[in-house]
Amino acid sequence: MIGLQRGATTLGMTRRHFEDFAVGDVLPLPERRVERADIIAFAAEFDPQPYHLDERAPATDLTAGLSASGWHICAVFMRMLCDGFLLESTCMGSPGIETLKWRRPVRPGDRLKGTSTVVETRPSKSRPEIGIIRFRHEVTNQTGEVVMWMENPVMFERRAR
Amino acid sequence: MIGLQRGATTLGMTRRHFEDFAVGDVLPLPERRVERADIIAFAAEFDPQPYHLDERAPATDLTAGLSASGWHICAVFMRMLCDGFLLESTCMGSPGIETLKWRRPVRPGDRLKGTSTVVETRPSKSRPEIGIIRFRHEVTNQTGEVVMWMENPVMFERRAR
Repeated sequence: MIGLQRGATTLGMTRRHFEDFAVGDVLPLPERRVERADIIAFAAEFDPQPYHLDERAPATDLTAGLSASGWHICAVFMRMLCDGFLLESTCMGSPGIETLKWRRPVRPGDRLKGTSTVVETRPSKSRPEIGIIRFRHEVTNQTGEVVMWMENPVMFERRAR
Repeated sequence: MIGLQRGATTLGMTRRHFEDFAVGDVLPLPERRVERADIIAFAAEFDPQPYHLDERAPATDLTAGLSASGWHICAVFMRMLCDGFLLESTCMGSPGIETLKWRRPVRPGDRLKGTSTVVETRPSKSRPEIGIIRFRHEVTNQTGEVVMWMENPVMFERRAR
């Protein structure tokens, strides 16, 4: 039966369920380039602090030069997560973030990549049809520096038993 | 001298510094309405899961009907924070998020408001020119339900001594 499930081609069967994650799995997130215009457009709408809008803003240690809003990095990460595996899964949303760290600025032209590592898998106590996967997500730039990491539980449907 | 500072009208003097926050302060964040088109535009770019794009997506307990991406709520919150007090402060960025919870979906037409409560103030040990304010931010909808809360340290310049 497991072989049959793995070989099945209907959408419902091939989507990644709770049972398809195991502690230690490292899921790659596809590269995404962040352009200057993207940084400014996001900041103009959501985070209009000077160092997200203008190269000539007064420098601070963290922000010398134009850099992306931390929430823009989160949004780009989310797209990488969707394209990496979430859209082909039974994801039912997330209750939140446990810890998130912005470690390095993201600059115009940076190429971000990432990984989602499974750190815990547990069935929901109150809802037998779902299970919770705790990830450590890490986003790196083109030189391999970590720009952001977070720990985050995500809910997935379990396979029918 | 304190009176003089309070009465000063130059930008540098009136911007909110580290010293202008005290534990227990509750800073209001201005209302912001989230429109259906905003929800879909954000999701199409950053979080194209079905329940953020289309009212007819299959329902889950959390997501029945169109709802905003959790990261969209964060981005809207950031704009409320900027307009509430951050743009008129010496904010130097944030190292991250300690805890974040998405508690309720945000629906088309929801009017969000919020507060930022100061839970801790401490000078930086390594950098005497800055201090760290820990906030508990809370975002509520038009019926007063909490849709998101988070705890988050933010760095501010200290006044020259």
